[in-house]
Amino acid sequence: MTYYVGVDVGGTSVKIGVVSSAGSIVSEVAIATGAERPQEVVLQDILEGVRQAVAASDLGWGKVRAVGVGCPGMVRAEEGTVLYNNNLGWRDFLLGPMLTEALDLPARVENDANAAALGEVVGGCARGATSAMIITLGTGVGSGFVIDGRIWAGYNSAACEFGHMVIVRGGRPCTCGRRGCFEAYASATGLIAMTNEAIATDPEGAMAEMARREGRVGGHTSFVAAEAGDPAAMRLVDEYTDYLACGVANLVNGLQPEVVGVGGGVGKQGERLLVPLRRKVSAELYGRDYEDDRATRLVSCTLGYKAGLVGAAMAAKVAYGE
Amino acid sequence: MTYYVGVDVGGTSVKIGVVSSAGSIVSEVAIATGAERPQEVVLQDILEGVRQAVAASDLGWGKVRAVGVGCPGMVRAEEGTVLYNNNLGWRDFLLGPMLTEALDLPARVENDANAAALGEVVGGCARGATSAMIITLGTGVGSGFVIDGRIWAGYNSAACEFGHMVIVRGGRPCTCGRRGCFEAYASATGLIAMTNEAIATDPEGAMAEMARREGRVGGHTSFVAAEAGDPAAMRLVDEYTDYLACGVANLVNGLQPEVVGVGGGVGKQGERLLVPLRRKVSAELYGRDYEDDRATRLVSCTLGYKAGLVGAAMAAKVAYGE
Repeated sequence: MTYYVGVDVGGTSVKIGVVSSAGSIVSEVAIATGAERPQEVVLQDILEGVRQAVAASDLGWGKVRAVGVGCPGMVRAEEGTVLYNNNLGWRDFLLGPMLTEALDLPARVENDANAAALGEVVGGCARGATSAMIITLGTGVGSGFVIDGRIWAGYNSAACEFGHMVIVRGGRPCTCGRRGCFEAYASATGLIAMTNEAIATDPEGAMAEMARREGRVGGHTSFVAAEAGDPAAMRLVDEYTDYLACGVANLVNGLQPEVVGVGGGVGKQGERLLVPLRRKVSAELYGRDYEDDRATRLVSCTLGYKAGLVGAAMAAKVAYGE
Repeated sequence: MTYYVGVDVGGTSVKIGVVSSAGSIVSEVAIATGAERPQEVVLQDILEGVRQAVAASDLGWGKVRAVGVGCPGMVRAEEGTVLYNNNLGWRDFLLGPMLTEALDLPARVENDANAAALGEVVGGCARGATSAMIITLGTGVGSGFVIDGRIWAGYNSAACEFGHMVIVRGGRPCTCGRRGCFEAYASATGLIAMTNEAIATDPEGAMAEMARREGRVGGHTSFVAAEAGDPAAMRLVDEYTDYLACGVANLVNGLQPEVVGVGGGVGKQGERLLVPLRRKVSAELYGRDYEDDRATRLVSCTLGYKAGLVGAAMAAKVAYGE
């Protein structure tokens, strides 16, 4: 068995692990990103974390074949470069070549959402699928498209940003500068904004009460209140899943992946989310009157944060594995 | 050199040709579809057309390696089956196996828009591109996505229907049953509807006058009048290209193909269409502030109706070529 190091770079922490070629995590460490520091300084901590993870695996360097990194922002996967990254302030960072230089291992750098999608295909909700679209409903809406075990990153490595697909032309402002993006409606942030609006409209309602009790409003607030039968929450969940279904149906009409996996904070709602979502997506598909035994399966992501780690390692396997 | 027979099935005529493995048409015949007849009867005419095309090529059957068909509706490419086709009334039609039986050649059946996209990649506007999205602005909006010389048809061969991507939620009704689809705005049909509305509003305007002179309203009406300086037509072209840019930007954000080719009736406007389109798409892209030397190229399709014929033959080459 060969092994790969996966590095999942986040804004607050970097997860590093040794992963088997079958996609199992053998050892795992986490370090603080310290994103306020220069990128070359952060790299030194990542290198130290890689050494710790390999030591903790008890495998020895001889069994480690390559390093894969999942990194936010825009990358050039073949060159191992991080072109830019707004959260971390990285610019034209030769991360892959520097890792190779320091560790004497080939290195592959992918966008973090793409790496996480690959992780779900190798070992998570889309295991064995010939194609999958993984949609992450978190602060934003991330998406990653995997075909035959390979990330589709497009000509410039900048795909797949379907969170920035306009579904409501002229609609809500999006952080990207467009209006009406899928992300502005289907992200946890979008859902929480809708929930806050509903609470402001009805400060004595079930969602308001729940928010006071918990001290916060989350992506779960409307779902929990809706399940308890609160009419305002039920309307809100209905509206949210309408938007989500609109974007998902767009992607199924366009790409017909074998699996659509839904993850991120809102994805944790599982079947509470998927039952209405499946019904609504089915009702919007092109050619929906034809009973297709190859309809796209809509499922929940299963790996959570580990998807990024596993996927980063598996991206290295795709690029440099035997 | 090996050769392939391409068959492009349309509602009124079927184009059949012998195509070289490099994508050049060697001989070509056209027959009337006669779509009111049973599918097996239409097949007999297609077979006769194939024989005529091979005879006209002067190559002899020995040099013909396989047959490819581009067919509207939903197909199963690997099985060669046309599952259904509303225009022709075909249902569960074993077209590929029947062609193989009659001609003693392997046969591949693809969706016609997908085949046309492959044709543009092999010998047209996206020649040599590692990936391309071909968008056809005609009665509807067709789309075809080609990666590394292969059609992306998805898990069920039903991709790529990005014409049925909602961009204006709750907007204009689409023939597919959804509202606000890209097709409802960006098709020639959509543009003509907008032009008719503008003419009704101002029956003495330049577009109205042009329509009377030509005896019809077409996709070209607004473009020609706008170029002549008519303010209402300029507004209309501006509105139309806004919608088109919205959908194209969605696809570039999501898939980052090397080339986007625009064809169909409206695509014939060429640079009149592409100049504003490029500007508007650039302004809507994710990460647009980064100067990317690998930006998607936006071009006009060049093969016209021949794209379907060439692409059908090349789909056979991809499936059965050496």
